[in-house]
Amino acid sequence: MKFEIPVSVHWLANFTGAKLVGDDTQMATGINEIHKVQPGDISFVDFEKYYNKCLTSAATVIIINKEVDCPPGKTLLVTSDPFTAYVSIVKHFRPFEPANSLISPSATIGEGTQVQPGTFIGNHVKIGENCLIHANVSIYDYTEIGDNVIIHSGTVIGSDAFYFKRRKERASQYDKLESCGRVIIHQDVEIGANCTIDKGVSGDTILGQGTKLDNLVHIGHGVVVGKNCLFAAGVAIAGKTTVEDEVTLWGQVGVNKDLVLHKGAVVLAQSGVGESLEGGGKTYFGSPSMDAREKMKELVWVKRIPELWEKVMKKQD
Amino acid sequence: MKFEIPVSVHWLANFTGAKLVGDDTQMATGINEIHKVQPGDISFVDFEKYYNKCLTSAATVIIINKEVDCPPGKTLLVTSDPFTAYVSIVKHFRPFEPANSLISPSATIGEGTQVQPGTFIGNHVKIGENCLIHANVSIYDYTEIGDNVIIHSGTVIGSDAFYFKRRKERASQYDKLESCGRVIIHQDVEIGANCTIDKGVSGDTILGQGTKLDNLVHIGHGVVVGKNCLFAAGVAIAGKTTVEDEVTLWGQVGVNKDLVLHKGAVVLAQSGVGESLEGGGKTYFGSPSMDAREKMKELVWVKRIPELWEKVMKKQD
Amino acid sequence: MKFEIPVSVHWLANFTGAKLVGDDTQMATGINEIHKVQPGDISFVDFEKYYNKCLTSAATVIIINKEVDCPPGKTLLVTSDPFTAYVSIVKHFRPFEPANSLISPSATIGEGTQVQPGTFIGNHVKIGENCLIHANVSIYDYTEIGDNVIIHSGTVIGSDAFYFKRRKERASQYDKLESCGRVIIHQDVEIGANCTIDKGVSGDTILGQGTKLDNLVHIGHGVVVGKNCLFAAGVAIAGKTTVEDEVTLWGQVGVNKDLVLHKGAVVLAQSGVGESLEGGGKTYFGSPSMDAREKMKELVWVKRIPELWEKVMKKQD
Repeated sequence: MKFEIPVSVHWLANFTGAKLVGDDTQMATGINEIHKVQPGDISFVDFEKYYNKCLTSAATVIIINKEVDCPPGKTLLVTSDPFTAYVSIVKHFRPFEPANSLISPSATIGEGTQVQPGTFIGNHVKIGENCLIHANVSIYDYTEIGDNVIIHSGTVIGSDAFYFKRRKERASQYDKLESCGRVIIHQDVEIGANCTIDKGVSGDTILGQGTKLDNLVHIGHGVVVGKNCLFAAGVAIAGKTTVEDEVTLWGQVGVNKDLVLHKGAVVLAQSGVGESLEGGGKTYFGSPSMDAREKMKELVWVKRIPELWEKVMKKQD
Repeated sequence: MKFEIPVSVHWLANFTGAKLVGDDTQMATGINEIHKVQPGDISFVDFEKYYNKCLTSAATVIIINKEVDCPPGKTLLVTSDPFTAYVSIVKHFRPFEPANSLISPSATIGEGTQVQPGTFIGNHVKIGENCLIHANVSIYDYTEIGDNVIIHSGTVIGSDAFYFKRRKERASQYDKLESCGRVIIHQDVEIGANCTIDKGVSGDTILGQGTKLDNLVHIGHGVVVGKNCLFAAGVAIAGKTTVEDEVTLWGQVGVNKDLVLHKGAVVLAQSGVGESLEGGGKTYFGSPSMDAREKMKELVWVKRIPELWEKVMKKQD
Repeated sequence: MKFEIPVSVHWLANFTGAKLVGDDTQMATGINEIHKVQPGDISFVDFEKYYNKCLTSAATVIIINKEVDCPPGKTLLVTSDPFTAYVSIVKHFRPFEPANSLISPSATIGEGTQVQPGTFIGNHVKIGENCLIHANVSIYDYTEIGDNVIIHSGTVIGSDAFYFKRRKERASQYDKLESCGRVIIHQDVEIGANCTIDKGVSGDTILGQGTKLDNLVHIGHGVVVGKNCLFAAGVAIAGKTTVEDEVTLWGQVGVNKDLVLHKGAVVLAQSGVGESLEGGGKTYFGSPSMDAREKMKELVWVKRIPELWEKVMKKQD
């Protein structure tokens, strides 16, 4: 997320109660988790094994739970609980804005776009031209939708990332990472009924031009889907995975987080993708998924075990 | 879909810019994709390998991309892009009608039927007597629902078929086949929460009398389900499959398109059905699914591979 | 379900047309299916093999389809169709109450709780303080929600149990067991978008403190989930299963009914749990699920079948 106006590191140190170390003249221009960080951003780190990654990242302001050497041109905000400091900044600059009507007055809706009854369109949402948003859709704040997009009933766009930090010492152990990212849907996308598209934690969840989703599809936080993909009913993709152009996922396929499915990959129904996939028309099957032809051979081999057993037993006679 | 009044082939040729070949006196009485075609219907074909199937079908008017010999009593509409011509006719005779209220004035709702708040009931919908439609359900135009039907919250009835034609040369590669079919739900059906039932492409998606669906069930376009079926939560059935009476599908089962599940078939949880199934109480399991007892044996055989390996190794000593 | 005031067995015999056998002075204080029965409750039994279980249960009033010896201090209501008698009592004391507005006047909503547009809150619902209920959520009657709970759009809380009695002789074979239980959601729970949480048949479906559900999760009737569980997107849990504290279920996991998943169990994505699981950090995988490490070994063994085959063939030469 980018801020509307830059924020001084002094204000941030004061707001979070952190100790300011390093360059005290910086202005932060946004806030991002480490995976999405850009120059000017605030980010946070609370595990020593990730210190180096964060300190050498593009982040300008780093909230950290130990006073370490500050790289030149960066600012450290040292506090015992960087996660809570990060969340407090997110909540300050992206507070929840209650809605009083189904369609927020701050939403903009393009010419020729039809919004059916019962649909909720949150604050600062932008919808392009000639879209058709069916009944009882829910579109959270800051979502952006291109032209000629069709969204079927019951679909939810922009729900929060499923992202928590465990605090074993508390009665309620999971501390919510507040999401401040968006969902961006490009032109000519169609989304079926009762799908769920989570917003990014700090960056954007994206559906590329011409991509089509069947019903009951789940797209996790920060997933980036390319152009002209087809996802059949019941597909679920976990957070931050990249799906390149022209990928086809058949029904009930599950895809793990942080993977890359390369251009043109095809995954057969009910497969579970646990590793990144090569594209170029390669086809995958199984849970865990593998090359589909290899999987088919494997299924035949399994059926031959009794025959093999008999051969071995015979030779023992 | 049937037209309200028959349409002359001259009007159709003119409307689509097609060349009229064969009988120029015909009147078209409806429009259907090839799987559902009836006498009087318009249909279309754009692959040479399907020409014969379409030309010998019951269709009276055939939109085709090559001038071929016209069978007697039929009319050809020859055009370079039959798909687009077909879609343009569908859109002309079944245009999208925007809704201004949650319950359309053209919907008819039987005596004793309770519609809870937030539910959308589209144009020309017919609902029988003594039904209970819970809150935030979405029922698209032309759906027909019998008596004593219960539909739980969040369910979507009549969303579009997931059916596209690929146009590799375009930036947005998938061209939508506009659906003009309906969903027909017979008496005593119960549908759980957040289910999705797509309309047929040109024919009807049907749920037979007494069939019960748990939550989050997906029924694809043109699926015909018989009487007294039970589908547990998370079941997904792809387009145009026929499920006969008294079929039981347990949780998260997926069924491929164009299959027949015969009367009384039982499919255990998480199975993936890729072939038509015999019924009569036969039970199936696995992904891909097979006879459940055979599958159970197979699972045991897999566990015996190490033992088999050891036997073979021993004999090598 | 407990009655608001106790009901005499005479009234019950008269209401159901049953013959009263045994203690005719009893007052029934509630009604429950056999799994949840407490002293004072009415329960029912219609299979001889379950007679003993029901007659020796805590139930005070037993609706039964045969005149048997009545245990001391209990009352039998003898009728040819105990199921129908039970359902008629449930419907009498927990009739469907139509709603006229999205938020029922009998619902109570705590201070600081935000309810977004399009959300339905049924009769007698209680929601705690500082909750955030997003748009187009549906909350059925009698649901109870604690403080600091977040519920995302499209989620349905309190839909009916998927529970039917088969009547093969009828045209519509499945007779609905009317649910009169509730859903109870404890503090600090977060529920994702388009989830479905069914009410209990007669007892409660419970989500314990600090538990977090991702999107499109299904929780069956009477499931009891402990504290600080994490269920990823697409998880489905069938009726009356107990999930203890700190259980983690990854994406698209399915869990069968009537099981116990002990504290700290972890189930990997797409697994199908058909048996109760030990906890303590044990990890499971597969459909049917097993110890994850054993499953991984099994997957490797399957890949070695061709090698084994070759060894056996060689020795035959």
